[in-house]
Amino acid sequence: MSFFKTAGLFSLLVLSTFYDGSAQSAKQPNFIIILADDLGYGDLSCYGHPTIRTPHLDRMAAEGTRFTQFYVAANVCTPSRAALLTGRLPIRNGIFGKRVVFFTNSANGLPHSEVTLAKALKTKGYQTGLVGKWHLGSRPEYLPLNYGFDSYFGLPYSNDMGKVGSISGSKAAGIPPNTNPPLPLYRDHTVIETEPDQRLLTKRYTDEVLNFISKSQGKPFFMYYASPFPHVPLYASDDFAGKSKRGLYGDVVEELDWSVGQILKKLKDLKLDKNTYVVFLSDNGPWLIKNRLEEEGGSAGPLFEAKGSTYEGGMRVPAIVWGPGLVKANTVSSAVATSMDLFPTILALAKVPLPNDRVLDGQNINDLLTGKKEKVTDLVYYYDSDRLYAIRKGPWKAHFTTHPSYSPEAPVPHEPALLYNLEVDPGERYEVGSKHPEILEDLKKEFEKHRAGVVPVPPLLDAIVEK
Amino acid sequence: MSFFKTAGLFSLLVLSTFYDGSAQSAKQPNFIIILADDLGYGDLSCYGHPTIRTPHLDRMAAEGTRFTQFYVAANVCTPSRAALLTGRLPIRNGIFGKRVVFFTNSANGLPHSEVTLAKALKTKGYQTGLVGKWHLGSRPEYLPLNYGFDSYFGLPYSNDMGKVGSISGSKAAGIPPNTNPPLPLYRDHTVIETEPDQRLLTKRYTDEVLNFISKSQGKPFFMYYASPFPHVPLYASDDFAGKSKRGLYGDVVEELDWSVGQILKKLKDLKLDKNTYVVFLSDNGPWLIKNRLEEEGGSAGPLFEAKGSTYEGGMRVPAIVWGPGLVKANTVSSAVATSMDLFPTILALAKVPLPNDRVLDGQNINDLLTGKKEKVTDLVYYYDSDRLYAIRKGPWKAHFTTHPSYSPEAPVPHEPALLYNLEVDPGERYEVGSKHPEILEDLKKEFEKHRAGVVPVPPLLDAIVEK
Repeated sequence: MSFFKTAGLFSLLVLSTFYDGSAQSAKQPNFIIILADDLGYGDLSCYGHPTIRTPHLDRMAAEGTRFTQFYVAANVCTPSRAALLTGRLPIRNGIFGKRVVFFTNSANGLPHSEVTLAKALKTKGYQTGLVGKWHLGSRPEYLPLNYGFDSYFGLPYSNDMGKVGSISGSKAAGIPPNTNPPLPLYRDHTVIETEPDQRLLTKRYTDEVLNFISKSQGKPFFMYYASPFPHVPLYASDDFAGKSKRGLYGDVVEELDWSVGQILKKLKDLKLDKNTYVVFLSDNGPWLIKNRLEEEGGSAGPLFEAKGSTYEGGMRVPAIVWGPGLVKANTVSSAVATSMDLFPTILALAKVPLPNDRVLDGQNINDLLTGKKEKVTDLVYYYDSDRLYAIRKGPWKAHFTTHPSYSPEAPVPHEPALLYNLEVDPGERYEVGSKHPEILEDLKKEFEKHRAGVVPVPPLLDAIVEK
Repeated sequence: MSFFKTAGLFSLLVLSTFYDGSAQSAKQPNFIIILADDLGYGDLSCYGHPTIRTPHLDRMAAEGTRFTQFYVAANVCTPSRAALLTGRLPIRNGIFGKRVVFFTNSANGLPHSEVTLAKALKTKGYQTGLVGKWHLGSRPEYLPLNYGFDSYFGLPYSNDMGKVGSISGSKAAGIPPNTNPPLPLYRDHTVIETEPDQRLLTKRYTDEVLNFISKSQGKPFFMYYASPFPHVPLYASDDFAGKSKRGLYGDVVEELDWSVGQILKKLKDLKLDKNTYVVFLSDNGPWLIKNRLEEEGGSAGPLFEAKGSTYEGGMRVPAIVWGPGLVKANTVSSAVATSMDLFPTILALAKVPLPNDRVLDGQNINDLLTGKKEKVTDLVYYYDSDRLYAIRKGPWKAHFTTHPSYSPEAPVPHEPALLYNLEVDPGERYEVGSKHPEILEDLKKEFEKHRAGVVPVPPLLDAIVEK
């Protein structure tokens, strides 16, 4: 994490280390980011789920590096995706507000001044594609092709924001039931269908990704495959529905696992595997809402709480990085890293200079991927939109405010903060502040330092389109 | 599980299927059971622990079959071990009582009429050894060499039952602090040390197991290696102390993992790996006692509750079976099985007829190990000593009584019972009885049928030696 660094220092470092001026001469690696939606930390077999079978992701982990302390920048969808694509905390690019994500009637999108992975990689001749969920703005000017993507196939927001009012699609945003427009399926700039059969989405998206890979031969490529699942409502194709012991949720995850297997197979078949990095991760924790979702929500495994929370279950996600010969194989890494690290890491590997006019919150973790270092990132900030609730330094996490996810109760401030040793106690069961007052003191200083260093920008999530 | 069967039917089946009358002619397989003490379902890397590194057990799982729905017969030490060695529920052999385990002043031991795995395998010429914790009686007549073991090296009970009063060693049993005898380390019938340096136990035990394997070449063998750890008090050798991110608990588990690695390596070095079954499991869930043990207790991963409970965290354990060419490799099995299944399975593999004068509660699971079947056992009973609290049938579990583990509160009866679908909801979060009254009804019938079929025997755990 980079709040110690000024933007200038950081870009100087990157330019001198990585930018060799002759990037086009070396064979450039390909990158695929596969982002699951609301998949919990405990929902894959290799992360300990008892009854969901994920043999392809398990093999991906065996052939690559599986991270056990990997974080996203936000505990809900839109800001997490903005941070993944820009390497910046949502607080820096305005992706926060009272409405915690973009809804169908949102007026804004990701600012065009932001540099996305796609836009940056275009500068080195990459072919760039997005298949799946965007969720960074649904007005025409905010669709993916405005942000460096050559092609787009997918839904512009969550799969529950269609005609039928649902948990996030209407109530939370004050949108009356059934007033959402029909769910639009885009190809590039154009809506090609509305309310597509969601049972077929994983198969169709997989085909699109495979076609993209096939067509991109000879050119370096970046594919961002953002699955709509296992976000609710859950849909699996006939080949998977009813097959899992875990019920429909398991069916959906097993189909996503199949999809990942198809992609890795295609890379091997085309002999692209030795030159392609594949990253699999989730955008935030699972949706555990008692008396509402229950079986439709996933599992945070040993972690406490879920999507929407600043406890570990909300922000620590499954994350596997694969690339035979590029990424250390058969490795379980407990290094602390974040989704924002992908931006500088991928740009460094592609020999693209980092933007030097802004603060970046990720850092290059290639030394983690190659096994040269055990740890790079030492500090993670937890945001619930624009509110800093907790920070982590080393194994220690201090909660300055807590709030049960999706609870009508008010947030609870803590003075002194609640202290946990996450590496000893990942479930945040045993508060140890009274045993370690000096650590609490240190974390409080970091907390204040970070808050003081953030330059406020206006929130972008709240403006709506008047009809 | 066998409560549908009479003992006679069961043994007839086994005899006709497995007993060919010429067992000595075929090369008999070796068996090693490695039993961890109080290791939680979530405490190994391959079961999802974020910071405990268990590369040897992870590889054992990759080379073998890892079970995700494997159960022990009791939620505490003594009855769980009695069931493992005899294939019978504790309620059948008297290993229950108000004192839930044997203590230093207990008068009894496992009845001599019980047939242990060691005793049964002796009939086919097996070399049998126990290294580690016995805990089935500490009077001379109840020590391991009276039950079919040729050799013994270890402590006769838990590692916290020595001179220094501790959690289970004194308070629970009404034994005043510091009145326990010094912790005795036995070789065969003889105490060779008292209060041995527990930091060296894992290394010494490992050496004993390796020596036993080396010496047994040419003869088939059965090794029961019952580690004293990660039961409290926790001790690691200098090579491991302070090395784990998880603290001392992690150090201890990582040393146990090293120990398992040494054993698998020895088998490979001696070319015994193709003819040896190795089973790794825990005796019950981890000890999670708020404000008492905390960091010294383990993790049940996604499961609810812990040692002493009839929730999943108390009785579902990590279990890995390994045997290259014998056991299906690279397999995660969610078949339901229990530690009591090891008795009939091992005897069948060794071509030893099962005892036909008693009820057995396990069944042969070799078809699970070879991948021929996905599921054998359909029903698991949950006992808290002699009290039936819950049963499982298929994915369904009904709690007729619940009791927080190590709580002073009274048990809570439930009418109707609490119903959970464990394959959908392993954490027992979402009670679904009102949605499935017919399943509740069916489980209630099974509950009554089982209770009616159990012939009461006197409890053996309560009698103490008068001084």
